Amino acid sequence: MKKIGVVTTGGDAPGTNAAIRAIVRTAHSMNLETVGFQRGWEGVMSNDSKPLTPRSVGGILQLGGTILHTSRSREFETKKGIRKAAKTLSQTGVDGLVVIGGDGSFRGACDLSKESNVLIVGVPATIDNDVYGTDETIGFDTAVNTAVAEIDKIRDTAISHERTFIVEVMGRNRGFLALTAGLTSGAEIIIVPEIKTKNETIIQTMRENQRKGKKSSIVVKAEGAGDARALAREIETRLGSEVRISVLGYAQRGGSPTARSRLLASLFGNKAVDLLLKGQDNKIVGLQNGQISTLSMEKSCHTTKPLDLNLLLLANVLAT
Amino acid sequence: MKKIGVVTTGGDAPGTNAAIRAIVRTAHSMNLETVGFQRGWEGVMSNDSKPLTPRSVGGILQLGGTILHTSRSREFETKKGIRKAAKTLSQTGVDGLVVIGGDGSFRGACDLSKESNVLIVGVPATIDNDVYGTDETIGFDTAVNTAVAEIDKIRDTAISHERTFIVEVMGRNRGFLALTAGLTSGAEIIIVPEIKTKNETIIQTMRENQRKGKKSSIVVKAEGAGDARALAREIETRLGSEVRISVLGYAQRGGSPTARSRLLASLFGNKAVDLLLKGQDNKIVGLQNGQISTLSMEKSCHTTKPLDLNLLLLANVLAT
Amino acid sequence: MKKIGVVTTGGDAPGTNAAIRAIVRTAHSMNLETVGFQRGWEGVMSNDSKPLTPRSVGGILQLGGTILHTSRSREFETKKGIRKAAKTLSQTGVDGLVVIGGDGSFRGACDLSKESNVLIVGVPATIDNDVYGTDETIGFDTAVNTAVAEIDKIRDTAISHERTFIVEVMGRNRGFLALTAGLTSGAEIIIVPEIKTKNETIIQTMRENQRKGKKSSIVVKAEGAGDARALAREIETRLGSEVRISVLGYAQRGGSPTARSRLLASLFGNKAVDLLLKGQDNKIVGLQNGQISTLSMEKSCHTTKPLDLNLLLLANVLAT
Amino acid sequence: MKKIGVVTTGGDAPGTNAAIRAIVRTAHSMNLETVGFQRGWEGVMSNDSKPLTPRSVGGILQLGGTILHTSRSREFETKKGIRKAAKTLSQTGVDGLVVIGGDGSFRGACDLSKESNVLIVGVPATIDNDVYGTDETIGFDTAVNTAVAEIDKIRDTAISHERTFIVEVMGRNRGFLALTAGLTSGAEIIIVPEIKTKNETIIQTMRENQRKGKKSSIVVKAEGAGDARALAREIETRLGSEVRISVLGYAQRGGSPTARSRLLASLFGNKAVDLLLKGQDNKIVGLQNGQISTLSMEKSCHTTKPLDLNLLLLANVLAT
Repeated sequence: MKKIGVVTTGGDAPGTNAAIRAIVRTAHSMNLETVGFQRGWEGVMSNDSKPLTPRSVGGILQLGGTILHTSRSREFETKKGIRKAAKTLSQTGVDGLVVIGGDGSFRGACDLSKESNVLIVGVPATIDNDVYGTDETIGFDTAVNTAVAEIDKIRDTAISHERTFIVEVMGRNRGFLALTAGLTSGAEIIIVPEIKTKNETIIQTMRENQRKGKKSSIVVKAEGAGDARALAREIETRLGSEVRISVLGYAQRGGSPTARSRLLASLFGNKAVDLLLKGQDNKIVGLQNGQISTLSMEKSCHTTKPLDLNLLLLANVLAT
Repeated sequence: MKKIGVVTTGGDAPGTNAAIRAIVRTAHSMNLETVGFQRGWEGVMSNDSKPLTPRSVGGILQLGGTILHTSRSREFETKKGIRKAAKTLSQTGVDGLVVIGGDGSFRGACDLSKESNVLIVGVPATIDNDVYGTDETIGFDTAVNTAVAEIDKIRDTAISHERTFIVEVMGRNRGFLALTAGLTSGAEIIIVPEIKTKNETIIQTMRENQRKGKKSSIVVKAEGAGDARALAREIETRLGSEVRISVLGYAQRGGSPTARSRLLASLFGNKAVDLLLKGQDNKIVGLQNGQISTLSMEKSCHTTKPLDLNLLLLANVLAT
Repeated sequence: MKKIGVVTTGGDAPGTNAAIRAIVRTAHSMNLETVGFQRGWEGVMSNDSKPLTPRSVGGILQLGGTILHTSRSREFETKKGIRKAAKTLSQTGVDGLVVIGGDGSFRGACDLSKESNVLIVGVPATIDNDVYGTDETIGFDTAVNTAVAEIDKIRDTAISHERTFIVEVMGRNRGFLALTAGLTSGAEIIIVPEIKTKNETIIQTMRENQRKGKKSSIVVKAEGAGDARALAREIETRLGSEVRISVLGYAQRGGSPTARSRLLASLFGNKAVDLLLKGQDNKIVGLQNGQISTLSMEKSCHTTKPLDLNLLLLANVLAT
Repeated sequence: MKKIGVVTTGGDAPGTNAAIRAIVRTAHSMNLETVGFQRGWEGVMSNDSKPLTPRSVGGILQLGGTILHTSRSREFETKKGIRKAAKTLSQTGVDGLVVIGGDGSFRGACDLSKESNVLIVGVPATIDNDVYGTDETIGFDTAVNTAVAEIDKIRDTAISHERTFIVEVMGRNRGFLALTAGLTSGAEIIIVPEIKTKNETIIQTMRENQRKGKKSSIVVKAEGAGDARALAREIETRLGSEVRISVLGYAQRGGSPTARSRLLASLFGNKAVDLLLKGQDNKIVGLQNGQISTLSMEKSCHTTKPLDLNLLLLANVLAT
């Protein structure tokens, strides 16, 4: 092992740069060179890369986004694209590749792994936290805090106007962000894609809350869990209270990473290089039971990470 | 003058509580009592009020929202509602009333003033900054900083994905927030309701930016300045670049006020009590040419505050 | 079990109010009443308490500090004080007591437990993170993020002036905060009380950094780990570079809790009530291996929580 | 006028990079080239400079510190140093020089101006806000907000522990930062270097506060206004209450600039280039009565900016 590559693919997550820094500096301490591929799989397929040194990753620890840029590549989703990437990789002289990204990135990496001799290790970074094999992904804690800070502000307005707010957070298929942000911001109701929540139940809860003297409510909803407008209309019609909708957008993807996202990024990046040096292939690193761990990338790709429904029950109790 | 009332009406703005604190404590230092009417004009019409003391406004300086709550009252918009408020006011024993709010609040206050003997003074607080007679309203600086913090985060994602983002900030009719947030976040393009911006011009600018090597763009648009989706579609079709839309919602209305919003609130609240003590009526306080000033409330209500177009020109030069 | 008490003792930690809220609302859902003792052990000894209801703990989730106030009680450190507390407790009618605090609080609670029939459960909350039996305490994540935000700002100045900064973070005997904040802020050198770091070694590292082209350095030091001024003087004398000292003070103890501190507080508070209901006594709740867990309070009090020295090694590699 | 230079000298202030960006891009729009001198006057004396282009100042708007670095130069304080700088300047081919900095920087610039034919314009940037000729300097608003955020956190602890805190903010000779931060954070007492405050008066105020039911106090003190420890000891002795000291350090100098600091920086930078193009020399730009203005640099250097004592009176009234 003499040279490794790094690529960031899929949606960006705060802490990705911290992971790049950890990979480059760990590699350097092990006498490995590192190159960074630009713009995700695009850069791998076209060998658009640049050397990364301990100095060139200085001052990026605290920056959101990714200095390597990222993209979603249609071409790479095809058999042909995968082969192209495998071929290029073999020409670049890298012996190992660290793929920083989410679920989709690892599926691509699995496919690439079958066509390539280069060792491939995955570092889970996504604000969705939906990667099986790690309790937490890089960027999740930052996104949760960003969402909570916004919801705290919205609550000021909700209380002052005695209104209901439906706050939509990111999460097309999964509700990790909605659940954690909802619980920690004290949302009265949390709606996740994993569980069918009847509008009837929501209306019922809000009615009880009114009886208890609550004059404003915050509903935190994952974007993929039903239609905010329809729900708003139903609440307004049936409870006679004003409802406003706030969609927390792409800001959830950016910003300076929290200490925890930086810590995970540092530990994961360091471990990924360690795995490559040990000749491991097709693995992802993760945090399991509070410990840095590894898992087969195949297994991670083909297993759905369960949502902790106890947290949802707890949220209901605490929002009493 | 023995007792004054305070009411917060219209959309809430960060710093409103700081203004309430300033009014109550200044009044106390002048041996005046203060009562706070609840839920905007509703509380005035129904004499739903509570005494406010120096101690009861302790610890609210840094809180968003308004401890007096606010609402938009349909009834108060009628002649009958105004008379009801005037009648109640005369029964509450207050000699003066401080109205904290925006443009619409002052129009209501003007109407009320004609029907009531109680002295009325306005304190401009709105994130829209659209009150004639003051260079800046309470809450504006906070909303600008909230928007800028969000846009800074969105830029991380814009750069990483080499995408264009249209960021919609609050402002149905006026572009103060969009202009200041756009300029200070380095937005490539700023769209305000006051100026018709042809999509053609926007496309042209973006094309030039691409030529100059800019791979991502931020368009900051006031919500009332055209349709974000239509613009996004046109950019995508004509420039072939991906466009995302982010609507910065109600969080712009909440949050702990910035030092500047607290400072304005303290100065305005203090001055409002001073005006009442001097027997002034139907005035608003404001900041003009860097000095605390006063203006006829009538004049403020019936004059449109101009947007500084030089700032727009400057923004264009600086986003080169 | 009909009524439980809550007391917050020792240094305050962000998330304490979130824990109080979780305890009161969980208790309520189990048909238990809750009272809160004021000002730490003082309030227990003098039965200075007030009922806490689901409504009275509304809106406190996001607040720093503790609504119950806290104090360090000399009297409670004596045998006599402990007996007084035990006697009062038996008169208040509480069947269980949740003690929110740190190491010292639990030692007091252990002593009290021996004298009292009331069940006692501990919830670890301290920015020092030095409680054995939990991987993380309430408030630690917030304090780390506060420190990191400050260090990020100081780095701006360090780089601009090409200077060395010694940043002192809280931690008289333990280095958890210094280590985590140092690692995640990219500090060049981290000094903790647990390890004797020779000035010679520090000078050596800084000299190497200079050779590598680093023109500024951040040294993060726990307050209990040596004298900042003496170190500053030695660096200035031997390396000829300007050194500045910044002591991050009590702000590390306050502020709105992070999502993670709120989450831990919610889980811990909920679990504490659960333990009392199950008749458990003299236990603390904690987070072990990523799971909510329990431990004998005695054991927690008499065992020193180890610092993860691997993190220190990692920090050195990553600060290369 | 074909080429201008920029130099950042003295203590750094957030918004300096925003000013550099404004200067470079305004100059570019006027067909002027810009070079940046490195490390303050050092870089001018040694002609250590680099070209600055619209692209090279991309992405710096939101960064604290200065990309040109800064330093305090002993040599430049001598007649010989000034001559050296004048000589180098004439060789670099710049026709105009923009000096970004504070009071001291402008005194140096005045001296340099007498020896050089290059036009010199000053842009006031310092967190101390102590430049005559401008109501506000670049960086001041950011430093105030940083200080206020810290004091808000300290208040959490002050209230929880019912303690008095003395918070020392930057300001060796002037109290602008202490006064504005103290007023907007609701400090009970504010101590500035411009006014001799007897400990007796402070003790008296605190005694009255105790009588009014205030159990905790925040004293905000400029670092140059007396000794915090001596005051703490006197309060402890005479009032029997615990006092803690927190020194807000160099973090006040760094961090991402607020919207207002970025706005001032944009306006000042733009105006500075405008002045050079108009052939003006030895001027500073500023904000006077809410308008961008200019003043003789000599006059600015030799006049002391007055502190607005009315704000101090207001602070006393509002902290009642």
